[in-house]
Amino acid sequence: MRNKLCAAALSVLVLSTATHAQEMKGDVAWDILAGLTSEVGPRMAGSEAEARARVWAQTRLTALGFTGVASEPFPIRGYVRGRDEASLTAPMPFRLAVTALGYSETTPDKGIEGDVVYFATLDALKAAPAGSLNGKIAFIDHAMKRSQDGSGYGPYGQVRRAGPSIASTKGAAGVVIRSIGTDSHRNPHTGVTNFPEGVKPIPAGAVSNPDADLIARIAGSGKPMRISLTLTGKTTPNMTSGNVIGDLVGSDPSLPPILVGCHLDSWDLGTGAIDDAAGCAIITAAALKAQEGGKLLRTIRVLWAGSEEIGGFGGKAYADKHTEPHALAMESDFGAAKVWRVNTNFWTSNKVLADRIADSLSPMGIVRGSGPVEGGTDVEPVIEKQKLAVVDLNQDGTHYFDLHHTPDDTLDKVDPAELAQNVEAWSRVLKIVGNEPGVIAP
Amino acid sequence: MRNKLCAAALSVLVLSTATHAQEMKGDVAWDILAGLTSEVGPRMAGSEAEARARVWAQTRLTALGFTGVASEPFPIRGYVRGRDEASLTAPMPFRLAVTALGYSETTPDKGIEGDVVYFATLDALKAAPAGSLNGKIAFIDHAMKRSQDGSGYGPYGQVRRAGPSIASTKGAAGVVIRSIGTDSHRNPHTGVTNFPEGVKPIPAGAVSNPDADLIARIAGSGKPMRISLTLTGKTTPNMTSGNVIGDLVGSDPSLPPILVGCHLDSWDLGTGAIDDAAGCAIITAAALKAQEGGKLLRTIRVLWAGSEEIGGFGGKAYADKHTEPHALAMESDFGAAKVWRVNTNFWTSNKVLADRIADSLSPMGIVRGSGPVEGGTDVEPVIEKQKLAVVDLNQDGTHYFDLHHTPDDTLDKVDPAELAQNVEAWSRVLKIVGNEPGVIAP
Ligand SMILES: [Zn+2]
Ligand SMILES: [Zn+2]
Ligand SMILES: [Zn+2]
Ligand SMILES: [Zn+2]
Repeated sequence: MRNKLCAAALSVLVLSTATHAQEMKGDVAWDILAGLTSEVGPRMAGSEAEARARVWAQTRLTALGFTGVASEPFPIRGYVRGRDEASLTAPMPFRLAVTALGYSETTPDKGIEGDVVYFATLDALKAAPAGSLNGKIAFIDHAMKRSQDGSGYGPYGQVRRAGPSIASTKGAAGVVIRSIGTDSHRNPHTGVTNFPEGVKPIPAGAVSNPDADLIARIAGSGKPMRISLTLTGKTTPNMTSGNVIGDLVGSDPSLPPILVGCHLDSWDLGTGAIDDAAGCAIITAAALKAQEGGKLLRTIRVLWAGSEEIGGFGGKAYADKHTEPHALAMESDFGAAKVWRVNTNFWTSNKVLADRIADSLSPMGIVRGSGPVEGGTDVEPVIEKQKLAVVDLNQDGTHYFDLHHTPDDTLDKVDPAELAQNVEAWSRVLKIVGNEPGVIAP
Repeated sequence: MRNKLCAAALSVLVLSTATHAQEMKGDVAWDILAGLTSEVGPRMAGSEAEARARVWAQTRLTALGFTGVASEPFPIRGYVRGRDEASLTAPMPFRLAVTALGYSETTPDKGIEGDVVYFATLDALKAAPAGSLNGKIAFIDHAMKRSQDGSGYGPYGQVRRAGPSIASTKGAAGVVIRSIGTDSHRNPHTGVTNFPEGVKPIPAGAVSNPDADLIARIAGSGKPMRISLTLTGKTTPNMTSGNVIGDLVGSDPSLPPILVGCHLDSWDLGTGAIDDAAGCAIITAAALKAQEGGKLLRTIRVLWAGSEEIGGFGGKAYADKHTEPHALAMESDFGAAKVWRVNTNFWTSNKVLADRIADSLSPMGIVRGSGPVEGGTDVEPVIEKQKLAVVDLNQDGTHYFDLHHTPDDTLDKVDPAELAQNVEAWSRVLKIVGNEPGVIAP
């Protein structure tokens, strides 16, 4: 940079950190979001930090007036991150921005090194002959693009979920993928991968998109490429995770409750602000806001689930334990951007109720959807088991996969106004379904 | 994320990496930019990579038709990066995104740890009593904001340049600063700091803006905070750096040449695309483009300087060695965004020539400036020594300090159309000054 600029003396400096913390103090949703990210920090499934988060959650829910607040532990097979390092060693030395994927195999401390075989797509990898990757490191590219409904994550996410195990079956010593994300920052996107029974786990990492661009350019040049990969994390059985639940008891406790879910655990690279402290903030603040005109007829139960990220274990544990009947379930786990669409699985079976929900959201610019409902990982097991009614409040996911599972998932990424819009939309829905005396069913 | 999305099968994938490499093939500026970033990579002052970059530069300039292409070595005191790690250890464990500053003192391998003393501004640090930081780690915040002309870098950059030495004089065991940057990504901004003669060097790092936000929030809560800091890099005397020069000889070689500069070295966190491979790409492509209507009257000399980042050593070495008269100097070292303003130091002394330059740029939307000229670090020593005429082509710096000195300074950040606009503006100026037979002077 030009050095003449340096000469200017600095007489007055005004402190202006980019936090909204002060202006938002006293806002329930913001306080939960800021607290989980700034007082607890990252909350990996099964970790000491996730346990601290459960204590924090119980204290906070109790202080907010929830009753029956409980921590419900369950055992998991977790993943404990170690040292994540990767470098190109040919055609030039270059340190890559890498993260291990959850359940990656552990490398030796000095890492592994191998020739790179580049696959432009997962289908290209699938087409590789058996044994053709023996001793090599597979690199899997893909072409995920941003979309409002996040629909690229299902198909392109398969590169992360299934790519490593497919590479293993072809003999690969390790695998590196282009991050499942839509940004162009040197922040890799982590997430879980899976090696099915009978498939040998191999070291599996993701590099940032700019790093993947570089690898693709080198692959395009035809120059031989080698990668050194060090991922010392370990898959670890017998860790303890847990859910936290709390109720706002309705005036008729004999009616089945409304279940609203989020997940308390987060990946460890960032502080889990958009994934999913924001969800816990939204559902909890909305449950309280829905009571502003008086107690609802039905109980609203919040579920802050554990271990969503590495296999949805919290949702399964909840469904197994809570066999008492529920009326309806919802989840917030798609960031903190505005709700733009509402969907239910009872548009036809309970048209009157569904129309009332859609009509209450329409003035906020929220449109009616027609696709299948999604529910969310943490409530899906109980939805399936009990055949529950579901309302989805779809958030704008245009920028979600810029941040998802990266070091960049931090508090500053949340717009307080968008967070508040979520709380408002959720509270409108909860007020309607919470005061519905009749049967609510899909 | 919602797991229903995962169910969709993936039938067709189209490779579409975000590179412009193919479409731009054959474009001189893009080829230099892509080559330096993708074939050489990061190019720290004094490193083996910087030496490779000089070889690359000589080969490329010769192939492009430059003559007298030469590598001109000089010795430097450099900085060799080690392991950069920092964590909060209280009030909660949290791994910070940190980078060592150039010339940071070396910590032990296991790092140092200390209580944090928070300073909202550099002035607040200056006001701290002597000895008040004994054994502590100073954290220096600041409030740099983005601006088109980058004018925040001078004053706020003092936090990086002078903050560590001031903290040392107050007894600090180490110092961590908020990155000098305008983004909100978990990418710290490196850069050089200085410990003047007589001041004890201390370990000095910069954390990313989101990390600094977190530290500021914790400081605001009043909770005691501790940081563990491991920066094992070393200040290293007797390294070899060097400049590369090349000429496009004019039709009257007796006239003093036009000198156009950039720097070949880069910080090591990214690949030095905007700082400053883009500058070398722009000046070189423009020098060639200016010859399209025929050889110019004057020689155009390109200077790809070494070791700009850690003290502007290349520019000093050039001025010392090249005492032959020059006519005018220019530099490109502010990224690859569009030129929006032109400035010279001869608006009044050579109004006719200056007006011709401004008039040639006006149709491109480039306005006439009136501030002092800046020249640039690599040409400033020869400008000062020989009292040279200068033309500044000011680029839009609104987003420059989002990327500057971070891991994010990579090829994908450059817009080929904006790069081409720079080449066009530069070539117009070079054509005019290169064909000026009369004296060119400030
Ligand atoms: Zn520079
Ligand atoms: Zn620089
Ligand atoms: Zn989630
Ligand atoms: Zn997630």
